[in-house]
This record gives sequence, structure tokens and C-alpha cells, in this order.
Amino acid sequence: MPVNYTPPTPEQLLPVRGITLGTAAAGIKRWTRDDVLLIRLSPGSHASGVFTQNRFCAAPVIVCREHLAQGTQTRALLINAGNANAGTGDAGLAAARLTCAAVAKQLACAREEVLPFSTGVIMEPLPVDKIVDALPRCAAALTPGGWYAAVRAIMTTDTVPKGASRRIDIEGTTVTITGIAKGSGMIAPDMATMLAFVATDAPIAPALLRDLAAEIADVSFNRATIDGDTSTNDSFVLMASAQAPLRPIERSNDPRLSTVRAALQEVAVELSQAIVRDGEGATKFINITVEGGRDGSECDRVARAIARSPLVKTAFFASDPNLGRIVCAIGNAGIADLDPRGVTFWLDEVLVVADGGRAASYRERDGQRVMTKPEISVRVSLSRGDATATVWTCDFSHGYVSINADYRS
Amino acid sequence: MPVNYTPPTPEQLLPVRGITLGTAAAGIKRWTRDDVLLIRLSPGSHASGVFTQNRFCAAPVIVCREHLAQGTQTRALLINAGNANAGTGDAGLAAARLTCAAVAKQLACAREEVLPFSTGVIMEPLPVDKIVDALPRCAAALTPGGWYAAVRAIMTTDTVPKGASRRIDIEGTTVTITGIAKGSGMIAPDMATMLAFVATDAPIAPALLRDLAAEIADVSFNRATIDGDTSTNDSFVLMASAQAPLRPIERSNDPRLSTVRAALQEVAVELSQAIVRDGEGATKFINITVEGGRDGSECDRVARAIARSPLVKTAFFASDPNLGRIVCAIGNAGIADLDPRGVTFWLDEVLVVADGGRAASYRERDGQRVMTKPEISVRVSLSRGDATATVWTCDFSHGYVSINADYRS
Repeated sequence: MPVNYTPPTPEQLLPVRGITLGTAAAGIKRWTRDDVLLIRLSPGSHASGVFTQNRFCAAPVIVCREHLAQGTQTRALLINAGNANAGTGDAGLAAARLTCAAVAKQLACAREEVLPFSTGVIMEPLPVDKIVDALPRCAAALTPGGWYAAVRAIMTTDTVPKGASRRIDIEGTTVTITGIAKGSGMIAPDMATMLAFVATDAPIAPALLRDLAAEIADVSFNRATIDGDTSTNDSFVLMASAQAPLRPIERSNDPRLSTVRAALQEVAVELSQAIVRDGEGATKFINITVEGGRDGSECDRVARAIARSPLVKTAFFASDPNLGRIVCAIGNAGIADLDPRGVTFWLDEVLVVADGGRAASYRERDGQRVMTKPEISVRVSLSRGDATATVWTCDFSHGYVSINADYRS
Repeated sequence: MPVNYTPPTPEQLLPVRGITLGTAAAGIKRWTRDDVLLIRLSPGSHASGVFTQNRFCAAPVIVCREHLAQGTQTRALLINAGNANAGTGDAGLAAARLTCAAVAKQLACAREEVLPFSTGVIMEPLPVDKIVDALPRCAAALTPGGWYAAVRAIMTTDTVPKGASRRIDIEGTTVTITGIAKGSGMIAPDMATMLAFVATDAPIAPALLRDLAAEIADVSFNRATIDGDTSTNDSFVLMASAQAPLRPIERSNDPRLSTVRAALQEVAVELSQAIVRDGEGATKFINITVEGGRDGSECDRVARAIARSPLVKTAFFASDPNLGRIVCAIGNAGIADLDPRGVTFWLDEVLVVADGGRAASYRERDGQRVMTKPEISVRVSLSRGDATATVWTCDFSHGYVSINADYRS
């Protein structure tokens, strides 16, 4: 069960004008559930994306980048679960292109107006025929109310569907934002095995949409890390159907953009935290903030060194205030001139380390009390600058090992 | 139980002329076993060391570096288990110095001729009094045959003692090399929670001994990684008592040095592999070799990216040929211009990936067969140069989580 996360009800995922969703069961794995999702966007819609930094990026990621680079409108997204189409070489690339062509034919649009996504096992051939066969059924099922079915179709080891909606008022017009995401292992820096799709009907110009996707990813999905692995397929896509009856938002200093950005960001943060809360085997949600660094990058490195340490993560699982492991992880962050005497850290409000050693006021029972909570904050100060960074992570449990030892069987 | 490792018998750990060892029970933790080790070296002995790169290095590591920097002879090593004296600030430093002073008094030598080492829980005050009280008992127990008792005294979560000896003939004189080591979690690049002490009676000049320690660490202890964490206390110390009746070895091109180096290296490799074989919860020993890189450093990064991926490690634990995870880890190594199409990899003799995708000849049953073995080799070619690198690691099991969730209790 996820840590402090209540999944949305179907009614809570609000339709977004200009966007319909349909799912079908293609039987990609030995399951009977829906595993293919088609998202259709009305003419004039645009999308932008942020993708994995893994050098072995999956074929659909390569095709998404190619199609988005054309600068055309986006008319459809096709997502399948059960097979990642990664590590599949030229055959995988051809497979991803074939599925786009099939969607283009089905919806009467251009191939480069279709974006493909896959999640699942790496290095197995994509069952193109099964996916193409499922397309007419997806198309027949397209509905503005399809968000809940959509998120269920793209789940892999997620234990709950993840989605969020916001409604905002812009100049008397209601603008809607709805997003869905799937995790849940392999979530890491630089976007990890995570697919997230966030849509709005606000008329955001394509150039602004590109910047917006990067800005939002940086404060949401790129803050989430589960096991430090970065997947071949991670993708975050922002869609704007421009169907809300508003003048186009074309300038970065348009105050309406701030309003939309804030709501998009809320949805993205909620989704990315939901991914961590439902991390494979997670029993704790840990917020790690590092402050007082010379720049954001070194704060980020320290935060991630803590977040990815298996020793730290198992101590959180055990509710064991073996906090020296956090000190050790800070020392391992690769900051060559870090002075341990400048390091202070708190567990929630409990001061644990001051001047590089255990704080005189620290009592183990206080550390113990915090460690038993399901939601814990670690705050580190490096005392060498003004920069800060935050990452969200979870603990490392027997559940993680079980899930990942049994994943394919 | 360790993977394919038979611990030495007491008789197999050969005395080294000029070196005696004594242990005692100081009661540092709630145990009754010996937990303090004193190693005494005859006058004219020298030592050199390679230490952790962790910025929060432990107090004894700081003191070791200071003492070795004096360039004097080394007359004693003091090692305790149960408390790492790390993250203990100035008080910890004072504590480490106090124990050295006590040894110096006990053995009538100078303080800077004593090297201190600690292993155990981080961020708890070192019980100096208990250790100092144990010194006379250690001194009374000093014996050339004390190697086996010595390694038992420094164990923490190790399941077996680790030690090795070699006898070599140099110009008709027998030279002995004996080493002991303790692991077993937190073993990682750049020396991790690992203590290793290797001694010889060969008369190696101090300047050569320094280079030799670095050279040997680089092909042995620095190749070992268990969970990617690097501890605050890792230390590898090479000791030369110069008691073998030979002319001093003073030049780096002395052929006798090659002979000694080869034997020292054999012992160091055996110890470092033993540490991995007895890694916390380990059920598999994995040898990862990356070849065809532009330089050793990028090969090393790819090898360590594979070795530290929790997804790869849990797949090994499960004997699951989910080999896409290895592809994913290669892509995560941070080599920005790596061309996936140049990547080939083999699991033992089975070709898995060629031209960046699954090899046409690959059959899952072949991958499955290799994955069930207790000892597996992963060989990756990057096809972009002539460099190679090797690391040794183990899998990630329920045992790891249990050990690290319960370590302090």
C-alpha cells in the first residue's frame, strides 16, 4: 500500500476539453486487463516532453523526440504496458514507427502527430500486431471521461492508480488540468521508469509549452527517486488542447501563464510524490532537503547520495535511528572540499548532527520517535552557501526485493 | 554463508617474522567475544595505507594519515570492532589519539608509531576506557601465531574470518605474506567499510611500500563493491617488518620487488574477493568486466553502474535473466556520447546483446542456465577503445535487507 496516498476516484479525474481517452486489452503479457491506451487530442493541440537521460533510451523515446522535433501539432498518444520496447535495436525502432503509422491511419492524422510510449520488460520484441489489433477497440472507447481507465491501463507494479485534477479560473473561464502517472520501481534522477501525462485545455503557445515542461519536471518528477536507477523509457508529456475559450497565451510574462503554471506544477508534484509513496515495497516517504550549498547542483548531489544509499534506506525501513549512515552518505556525495565540521542535520525537528559530530542535545529516543513515522523529513545544512535542493524518496524493504526478484514471473 | 569461499584454518595463516598479534575482550558492544586487536611490529618496520575517500572519514583514519605522514617507522596497530569512531567530531579525534598514546606507553614507542583503526556503528562515542583497559591483556596475548584470533576479533557482520598467506622464495630465503580482512556491507568503490591488514617480512623500502599499497589496492580492494556505499573507515594497510634476511629492496626495478608484489597482490585479491563473497546477504558472486572503452575510467563507470543497480542485483538474487536491466544500467553510467549500437554483452559465454539489441542467437533458457550459477561473469564491450576494467560484486537479497534493518539491535 502506498504511504499516505489516497488514489483518485474516477470522478475526481476531470475531463479536459479536446481530449479523449480509450483503452483496450491487447494481451501483451499473460493478463486480461486493458494494457493499451490511446489518447486523442483535438486539432491544434500541442505537446512537449521531457525524456530519460539513459543512453539506452527506448525506441518510443527516440520516436517521440523525432516527432516533437518536427514542431507540428500532436493529435495522439499511444501507450502500452507490459513491454518497454527498449534494448530492441533497429527492430524496436521500426516497431515503434509501425504503431504510430497505425494510429495515424486509425485517426486520419500524420504519423509525426502521434507520440508512442511503452513501459514494461526491457529487451523483448514489442508485439506490434497485438497492439495494432487493439487500436480500433481503443478508438471505439475514446471518451473525455476516460482518464481513470487510462491510468489503470498503464500500471505495471503500481499498487494504485495515480492521478490528479485542478480547475482554475482565468478571466472567468474555467481551465482544467488533469494528469496521470505510473511508477513505480526504477524511479530516479533524470526521469526514471515513469510515465506521466498532464493535459490542459489552456491555449498555451508551443514554444512556452516546451519551456514549461522542463521547468515543471525539474521541480516535480526530477525530484523523485526510488532506487537510483534511471529507466530507458521515462517520459513526462505536457499537452495543451487550446480548447478553453481564451486568447492564446504566447508570452512568458503573461500573468495567466503563472496561474496555469502553478496549477500544472501542483498536479505534477502530486503525481511525482504519489509515485514515490507507491515506490516498490515503500513503507516510508522521505523528504530530503539540503540547504546552505554553494549551488543547487551540490545540494542535489548530497540529497541524492542520501536518497540512494541502501544502508540509509534499510535503516528507514527498520525505523532504526542508525543516523551515522546519513552522515556517511553525505560524505560520499563526491564534494571533494566539503568540510564535515560545517555539516548540520535534522530529522524532522530533532537536531542530530552539529559541527560534524553528534549534537550534544541529541537523544536516541528522539531519533527513534521520528524514525517510526511513515513520513519523515531529513534536513541537511552544508553551511557554505545559499543554495538548496529537495528530493523525495522511500525506504528499502523486503517488499522491494520480492517485487524485483519476481517481476517477470 | 559466503559464496564459494572456504575460510582459512588457524594453521593456514602463517606467522610473519617481526609481527605479533594479541586480542582481548573489551566489551564494546553487548558481546563477550574479543573485540580489540593489537598488532606489534619489530623495530625498523614500516607501514603504508590507502584510506576511504569519504569526506566524513572517521577519526582513526585522520590520525592514521597524520602518523603515516611523519615518515617514521610503525611499531603498532590498534583495531577495535563495535564502534567506528566516525561522525564523532573533535571528541572522536581526541579519543583516537588517546588510544594511540596508551598503546605507545604500553609498548614503549612513540605515539606517531601507532596506527588506530575502528569499525562498527557510526556516530557513537568511542569507549576509550574499555579499550585502554584491554591493552595490557592484548599485550600479554601477543604471539606470532595470533593471526586467526586477530581476524576473529575484528569481524562485525562477517559470517566467516577472511585471511590468506603465501610463502615465496627469494634468493633462497623464504619470505612470508599474511593478510586478514573484514567486510562486509558498505563495500564500494574507493575503499569501503573494510579493514585489511597485509604484512610481509620482506625488507621493502618505505617509499616503495607507499606506491605498492596504492598499486595493490587499485587491483584488489578498489575492485570490490557490495552496495555502492563507501564507508567512513575503510583502510588497507601494508606492513613490512624487514625481518627476512635479505638485502633491502630499494629500487622499483628490483626484480625481487616483482616477486613480492605478485604474492602481495594474490593475497589482496583473495581477501577482497572474500569480502564480496561474504557480502551482506550475498548468494552470488558476480565478476563484471567492461572492455573496449576509451579509457579505464569509463569502463570502470559502466562496471560500477551495473554493480550498484538494485534492479540488476535483485535479478541476480532471483536467478532471473531479466537482462534488460543490465542494458539499462549501462545506459545509466553517465557516458554522454555512448552509442548503444556499439554495445555487446555476454553472460558467461552466452552472447546476450549485440549491436545494442538482443542478439539473434540469444535464447532465454541459455540466460536462465547461467543465472542459476553461484558465480557469474558479465562481460560488456563498448567498441570504442582498448581500455578495460573489472569489478566484483554480489547480489541483493532479502538477507541484505534483514541484516541492515537489524544491525544495531
